[in-house]
Amino acid sequence: MSTPDTPGEFDFIRSIHSYFGSSPDVIQGVGDDCAVIRVGDRIQLVSTDAFIEKVHFRRDWSTPEDIGWKAAVAALSDIHAMGGRPQFVLTSLAAPKSWSAGELQELYRGIQGAVSTSGAVVIGGDTTRSPKGLMLDVTVIGEAVGGHYRLRKGAQAGDALVVTGHPGRSRAGLLALEHGVDAPEAMAIHIRPQSIQGAFWELVQYKAVHAMMDVSDGLAQDARHLANAAGLGVELLSDHIAADSVIEPVCAALDTSLSDIVFTGGEDYELLMAVAPEQVESLPIPVQKLGTFTDSFEGVHIDGESVDAQGFDHFRD
Amino acid sequence: MSTPDTPGEFDFIRSIHSYFGSSPDVIQGVGDDCAVIRVGDRIQLVSTDAFIEKVHFRRDWSTPEDIGWKAAVAALSDIHAMGGRPQFVLTSLAAPKSWSAGELQELYRGIQGAVSTSGAVVIGGDTTRSPKGLMLDVTVIGEAVGGHYRLRKGAQAGDALVVTGHPGRSRAGLLALEHGVDAPEAMAIHIRPQSIQGAFWELVQYKAVHAMMDVSDGLAQDARHLANAAGLGVELLSDHIAADSVIEPVCAALDTSLSDIVFTGGEDYELLMAVAPEQVESLPIPVQKLGTFTDSFEGVHIDGESVDAQGFDHFRD
Repeated sequence: MSTPDTPGEFDFIRSIHSYFGSSPDVIQGVGDDCAVIRVGDRIQLVSTDAFIEKVHFRRDWSTPEDIGWKAAVAALSDIHAMGGRPQFVLTSLAAPKSWSAGELQELYRGIQGAVSTSGAVVIGGDTTRSPKGLMLDVTVIGEAVGGHYRLRKGAQAGDALVVTGHPGRSRAGLLALEHGVDAPEAMAIHIRPQSIQGAFWELVQYKAVHAMMDVSDGLAQDARHLANAAGLGVELLSDHIAADSVIEPVCAALDTSLSDIVFTGGEDYELLMAVAPEQVESLPIPVQKLGTFTDSFEGVHIDGESVDAQGFDHFRD
Repeated sequence: MSTPDTPGEFDFIRSIHSYFGSSPDVIQGVGDDCAVIRVGDRIQLVSTDAFIEKVHFRRDWSTPEDIGWKAAVAALSDIHAMGGRPQFVLTSLAAPKSWSAGELQELYRGIQGAVSTSGAVVIGGDTTRSPKGLMLDVTVIGEAVGGHYRLRKGAQAGDALVVTGHPGRSRAGLLALEHGVDAPEAMAIHIRPQSIQGAFWELVQYKAVHAMMDVSDGLAQDARHLANAAGLGVELLSDHIAADSVIEPVCAALDTSLSDIVFTGGEDYELLMAVAPEQVESLPIPVQKLGTFTDSFEGVHIDGESVDAQGFDHFRD
């Protein structure tokens, strides 16, 4: 193999693409938030998401119920990311003996809380021992209602980059936990994020929404994914970011800027979209416009400066 | 919680059942080899299966390609266990840094080999770091062809317990590896098991096949699951076991009996069925009859003696 020994996650995924076959029932395989498959006259969205102790969560910050909740929210978010409706959930659990049966039951209570909030139902799973560290893998099957969904690709030059909700709050909470900043609201959002609120499933009926994904790895990095998928660049503008009273105390305590936190922040599980600029105001849920797609460069610029890929990449050293 | 702190896996799964909701589209939820769901005019079978380093595999016995292969075979087998046709596979991988990119690529090549052999296609997954030990979770979505499938429940008193293939060979291989017995054929079957061969998918069109599962935890334990699901008992008869030249050298070297290996052996990924006795000969693939379901007791008897649950239970100490 000529592949480097420590590739980034995205390089690695690319390197294994070539192994996998195809099928006429697979509309979108590896490489988007979900796989998109045809099942009879329906279109299904399917995703699986691993949640690993000491990688995705720490037991000293989160209760077992928090951990189950967040793992489920992250997995459900992949279905939302395409505009789908989560229907069925499977959970695979590998637990070390350091977790009691009572703690594992709390973990499942957290999963069930998030799953039922989303309107889905747990239909199965696997349970086994782990020699060390808990692993939870959550698979979600969703429906593309009316056959409508959006891929990461589809952005057009001139489109607005818009985001729902309050991006950066989860990262502010993580920084507050790491540095002992007194920011309970941000911490709570990091530990127990909410799924996207509002009529998000209507978005896919708007032709002006050209591409969509969720904010999971980091806003600038995820914007880069949307731009790359379309062969475009994206210009982010920090002065477009709305003031956020939840994040600002963390900025003050850590002497960092709101835009640093918002653009590097992931795990917000909000939707990031490429939208025809004249239609931004008519979307059915509130969004912030944080940038513009362009064909004059590739990659990400922030306030006119080119930036490297940001965000969290599990496979990078 | 009044639940004991170290319950068996099955007790634990029962204890969390009550958390999960239901949906009219869920025909069979938690508690069988697969979940069975209705999607438009189709019936889907869905299962997820974790494969954990030092629990399910050892790196000193298996190559990365072997490990990927076996994890996929085990997961695909859950679909076969209901008589379904595997269609779509998702893999979630958490890998420690001790695995090189090349080794991970071999792992995926093993997954792809087993998946393509089964006629399915990999459609997505997740990759992340693990602090220690590799964890692989494989989700398989299958189709109940023509709407036909079989559950674990459905055995009738008087039914024959039959099994396809050569049960016990995987366990013989495991024992040979553990004890240094020279039994290369058995070892190869343990390390790189084959999916069930032959026209297994036709079985679900036979009304005489009342219940079905795969041999994964251990033949006697899996027979117990079939019996329990029907509120019956099952009588196993060791003199019904066919001579097996692959297993017998291991029996001789370790001074154990063929029936001990066959009845405790798991990971054979063969089908275990309850079949109307007069129809056993007319099944479309060869089977061994190893016992009879009865309403005169519950649980498992071997040669007239009641036996405790056998096989491998990850959650038992």
